[in-house]
Amino acid sequence: MISFRNDYSEGCIPEIMEYLASTNFENTSGYGEDDYSERAKNIIKKKLKNDKVDVYFLVGGTQANLITISHSLRPYQSVIATEKGHISTHESGAIEATGHKVVELPSGDDGKLTVELIEKAFINDLAPHTVQNKMVYISNPTEVGTLYSKKELEKISKYCKKNGLYLYLDGARLAMALGSEKNDIQLEDYPKYVDAFCIGGTKCGALFGEALILINNELKKDIGHSIKQKGALLAKGRLLGLQFEKLFQKNLYEKYGKHASEMANLLKVGITKCGLKLKADSYTNQQFFIFPNDLMKKLEKKFVFEFWSTEDENNTVVRFVTSWATKKSDISEFLKELKNLI
Amino acid sequence: MISFRNDYSEGCIPEIMEYLASTNFENTSGYGEDDYSERAKNIIKKKLKNDKVDVYFLVGGTQANLITISHSLRPYQSVIATEKGHISTHESGAIEATGHKVVELPSGDDGKLTVELIEKAFINDLAPHTVQNKMVYISNPTEVGTLYSKKELEKISKYCKKNGLYLYLDGARLAMALGSEKNDIQLEDYPKYVDAFCIGGTKCGALFGEALILINNELKKDIGHSIKQKGALLAKGRLLGLQFEKLFQKNLYEKYGKHASEMANLLKVGITKCGLKLKADSYTNQQFFIFPNDLMKKLEKKFVFEFWSTEDENNTVVRFVTSWATKKSDISEFLKELKNLI
Amino acid sequence: MISFRNDYSEGCIPEIMEYLASTNFENTSGYGEDDYSERAKNIIKKKLKNDKVDVYFLVGGTQANLITISHSLRPYQSVIATEKGHISTHESGAIEATGHKVVELPSGDDGKLTVELIEKAFINDLAPHTVQNKMVYISNPTEVGTLYSKKELEKISKYCKKNGLYLYLDGARLAMALGSEKNDIQLEDYPKYVDAFCIGGTKCGALFGEALILINNELKKDIGHSIKQKGALLAKGRLLGLQFEKLFQKNLYEKYGKHASEMANLLKVGITKCGLKLKADSYTNQQFFIFPNDLMKKLEKKFVFEFWSTEDENNTVVRFVTSWATKKSDISEFLKELKNLI
Amino acid sequence: MISFRNDYSEGCIPEIMEYLASTNFENTSGYGEDDYSERAKNIIKKKLKNDKVDVYFLVGGTQANLITISHSLRPYQSVIATEKGHISTHESGAIEATGHKVVELPSGDDGKLTVELIEKAFINDLAPHTVQNKMVYISNPTEVGTLYSKKELEKISKYCKKNGLYLYLDGARLAMALGSEKNDIQLEDYPKYVDAFCIGGTKCGALFGEALILINNELKKDIGHSIKQKGALLAKGRLLGLQFEKLFQKNLYEKYGKHASEMANLLKVGITKCGLKLKADSYTNQQFFIFPNDLMKKLEKKFVFEFWSTEDENNTVVRFVTSWATKKSDISEFLKELKNLI
Repeated sequence: MISFRNDYSEGCIPEIMEYLASTNFENTSGYGEDDYSERAKNIIKKKLKNDKVDVYFLVGGTQANLITISHSLRPYQSVIATEKGHISTHESGAIEATGHKVVELPSGDDGKLTVELIEKAFINDLAPHTVQNKMVYISNPTEVGTLYSKKELEKISKYCKKNGLYLYLDGARLAMALGSEKNDIQLEDYPKYVDAFCIGGTKCGALFGEALILINNELKKDIGHSIKQKGALLAKGRLLGLQFEKLFQKNLYEKYGKHASEMANLLKVGITKCGLKLKADSYTNQQFFIFPNDLMKKLEKKFVFEFWSTEDENNTVVRFVTSWATKKSDISEFLKELKNLI
Repeated sequence: MISFRNDYSEGCIPEIMEYLASTNFENTSGYGEDDYSERAKNIIKKKLKNDKVDVYFLVGGTQANLITISHSLRPYQSVIATEKGHISTHESGAIEATGHKVVELPSGDDGKLTVELIEKAFINDLAPHTVQNKMVYISNPTEVGTLYSKKELEKISKYCKKNGLYLYLDGARLAMALGSEKNDIQLEDYPKYVDAFCIGGTKCGALFGEALILINNELKKDIGHSIKQKGALLAKGRLLGLQFEKLFQKNLYEKYGKHASEMANLLKVGITKCGLKLKADSYTNQQFFIFPNDLMKKLEKKFVFEFWSTEDENNTVVRFVTSWATKKSDISEFLKELKNLI
Repeated sequence: MISFRNDYSEGCIPEIMEYLASTNFENTSGYGEDDYSERAKNIIKKKLKNDKVDVYFLVGGTQANLITISHSLRPYQSVIATEKGHISTHESGAIEATGHKVVELPSGDDGKLTVELIEKAFINDLAPHTVQNKMVYISNPTEVGTLYSKKELEKISKYCKKNGLYLYLDGARLAMALGSEKNDIQLEDYPKYVDAFCIGGTKCGALFGEALILINNELKKDIGHSIKQKGALLAKGRLLGLQFEKLFQKNLYEKYGKHASEMANLLKVGITKCGLKLKADSYTNQQFFIFPNDLMKKLEKKFVFEFWSTEDENNTVVRFVTSWATKKSDISEFLKELKNLI
Repeated sequence: MISFRNDYSEGCIPEIMEYLASTNFENTSGYGEDDYSERAKNIIKKKLKNDKVDVYFLVGGTQANLITISHSLRPYQSVIATEKGHISTHESGAIEATGHKVVELPSGDDGKLTVELIEKAFINDLAPHTVQNKMVYISNPTEVGTLYSKKELEKISKYCKKNGLYLYLDGARLAMALGSEKNDIQLEDYPKYVDAFCIGGTKCGALFGEALILINNELKKDIGHSIKQKGALLAKGRLLGLQFEKLFQKNLYEKYGKHASEMANLLKVGITKCGLKLKADSYTNQQFFIFPNDLMKKLEKKFVFEFWSTEDENNTVVRFVTSWATKKSDISEFLKELKNLI
């Protein structure tokens, strides 16, 4: 059955698997003190055109979020996110488990945070009775596949700098942002705007792994301790190093991200042409459509996609996700079937 | 200057001060293992017509909330409250600091939680990715002075029991609920509906202190450890015991609560007669009025009351609080001045 | 029955009770924003001959310890103490509950920490696999009633400063240190040696309360948030303020501390004259004796004192505690009975 | 340079790498809901001759420890370990960061816990002032390579059951225990003695991964939430499933464990024959020798091994670790050189 379920259903891009296999018997230092990790860090710094950032490799996204946030905040400080944010809803209270409140702000269908929203978090500040907001968390692409424009990111960044807030960007699907036709933020731009960000590997063609980039010096100190303490220091750290080395050596990261976003666009164009509606105007590899329930049930027999939310009595929001592994023929076959059914 | 700022501006009711002074030189056991505490517990159990509850005395309300909640929940469990709840906004992230998410639900101007609202907390349950909601937190009176009816409390209670949720009621101002003309929930009713609740002392005539009542056996086990661990085991525990003994010996608790609520009602009747509007329909000792800014400024010169929120360009919501210490003459003087100004 | 059980068995010194009663009906601001607290802070700063310290009043000792330690440390940092330290053994894991390891070092019968012991905590430092030791916790008097000399404190202080460690001193019974004949550290000396310390009230004649003194600027920032978050911000903060104002206005603190230490010395001299042995050479109000079990059982019929530990088959270590409330006649009566029995 | 540094220097056993590569493009469900994980769980249950255990796959050992411990304990409960235990010294305070004290007991050179030691943790139990000991943590092999005998494990197990303590066994190097000539505990024995244990993959031939086995029903409930909350739910869970499927399909786990232990024994026999002394009598793949400093320095030029501790002025304890990847010729070459030098 052809699957549009998610972007972590397959293993990894062939280039990584080959590299992994061919270097398997090498004997290296543990805990990221190896040459692969060293090279990967250097390549990423080069791509970012910034050799002052610190780079760490972690296994997963929730790990990256909880480590960065708990490492950055004092006990009484909180992090601001939208109510759709991954840390707000999909991490089983991971941030709160480290002692910090996630201040959740309502956002529209586009899932984006704005300066106007952030300001709301300060309306009833009655220190010391209220938490101290100290960090802003955003994702790009957002949880609903939308993209921040450079202007939007810049505006948030300026507000944060002015108000002493750290800005942390979760880039679990950053490859698909970089590869989107609508994107105007380059990889090298991020360090200018944020204090820390993540370059996602797991959903972008790696077997697993996220690269955590620390720009603000205040966040760099002793983060190795936080990584170890949260159980995130991989013994065979080279496994992470070699994957990121490979991803960034020959622009594979952007190449595969572009592929995923393009496949999603084909889906979007094809589906909307059939008269079906979008729930959010995504330009990356997650697409949200409003399907009549009847149609949805018929399609589910041949294709895998995800229930997202109930739109109304007769209609459902469904999520389609493409990836580095999605084939053009998967899209064609789906659209053919869709046309047949309509 | 006459003050309607809050209900913890004076020391304590004279009966307690006298008792405190007259027993000062007695030598007793520490940590609540004394006769005063023993007697106070027995009196409260008698008032509750329930000798199976466990009673503990704590110094403050935030303490009571954070101990009860963290003691009741497993690490991945959360507590549901309204966005106006004391634990949501006024405890500097105390609950999250113990590792637990406060799931904040929007409530109307009346600040009450309902079954319909609670159900919303379960809409996107994607276990194990989402937190596990396990407790419901309500206050009576609420943070805006409103009261739950017996029917409303019963409905929430039934829903919680059916769905395996603990129901915890914060009664920081319970005396004023019990003393309100609109109240239909008696002290002895609470153990039937909730798993744990607090009988507030600090705001109800004691120097300080909250009585924590545990009804559900699951919450009783080892709570002494949680109390000690959170720094809430008072060495001279008898200070708490003797205050609660006095408050409940001769119905002083309800008597003074009634006084406070009555004073508030005089204010409310007088102020609304002048054509000013209520923000919330409170029947207890906190009253919220919408004042034109000009009027507010003039009144502030002679009386103390609190800014609550901005209503619009020309109007402000202000909070008036009465207490066991409020004199009838304070109200008359305020109303006289108000009439003069209007 | 005459009691040598502890120093928190009675209420408070009469001067405080009188002050409390006579000011009961005053209307003041809450949360420590009142004139009593203001005055108390100023008097303490004057006594310390240091107007740059920050002073906060808390209800209890475990509270003071857990707030100071958790406020000072980053998540991966630990506090060093002796295995006899109050935070090591008598706070139900309060420090660990805030996320921090207590590195417990073995100490001799005198319960004192030394530079030689502290250095042991660094022997196997394998950062980031090991915790980062960042704070040293000592008590004066120690948990077994012994005193640090100025020289000893100075040595620890120098080591800490040199090695970037915070030094925090728990003075739960500081009055008795200040009042001991062997003491050579004056109140005003402490800010020179430590980053933070506590002046105990609960065990030194107050109803309750500890004054937390912050010297190091790094520890001052936002501590109000930590106090509120841990449930330690007393609504009627003036209760703490007025007690400390009274204690330090006329040297009552030292006067009563001296009384307690003198009473203890009378006991010590009397008991050792009878040929009984000391377990630790205390010069403050806690005395530890080795009693033959037979003798102990006989004495327990007429006097209250505490089992401390089993010395051997036939002998037990017992603790005697004196206080501001101990009368000279209590000592005489005890010694008379002891002589009778021997 | 030939390395005896550790057992996680290479990638993985060839059988796993081959399996990983050959299944790379399969599309499966995420988060461990895949067929590989299902099969791996079933094979392990079969090996354990117990189909009632729950099996979860995690990425690393610190993760497994902190999840199991924090999931099992109430906030005021602690875990008992030796002062040499991995959780005591090598996890950067990971357990304390989840709120729990590690009660560290002194152990001899063999690093083993005994009932006599555990009992010491209860000597000064002054509930609720002291933590409540609720879990015992042991490792097999221990941190110094020694093995528990069946009798020793049984004795600890009985004590724990009788006293309501959970027993958790960290088997990060379990393969080498199972493969040791001195071992008398079979894999299927563990569920009889412990409440939970880990079967290590990372150090036993897998790329990464630990299998957590839960026997006691009390520990099973909702552990998926704890795994997600601590950032340990691998998106591509099948990567863990397929590795454990392969390890246990054809006894590869024990086969490679035996190889590592045998290589270590060759080293031990060879080195002791040269007149050098053992620090601990290990029968698994970690060996600790006392080397004269001169000799150590010469050997370090050609071989990689680890400094462990300073024995005295002239001698050092060094650690040698063998693994599935150690070749017999590595041992011969080392012993040849050693003989030359002596």
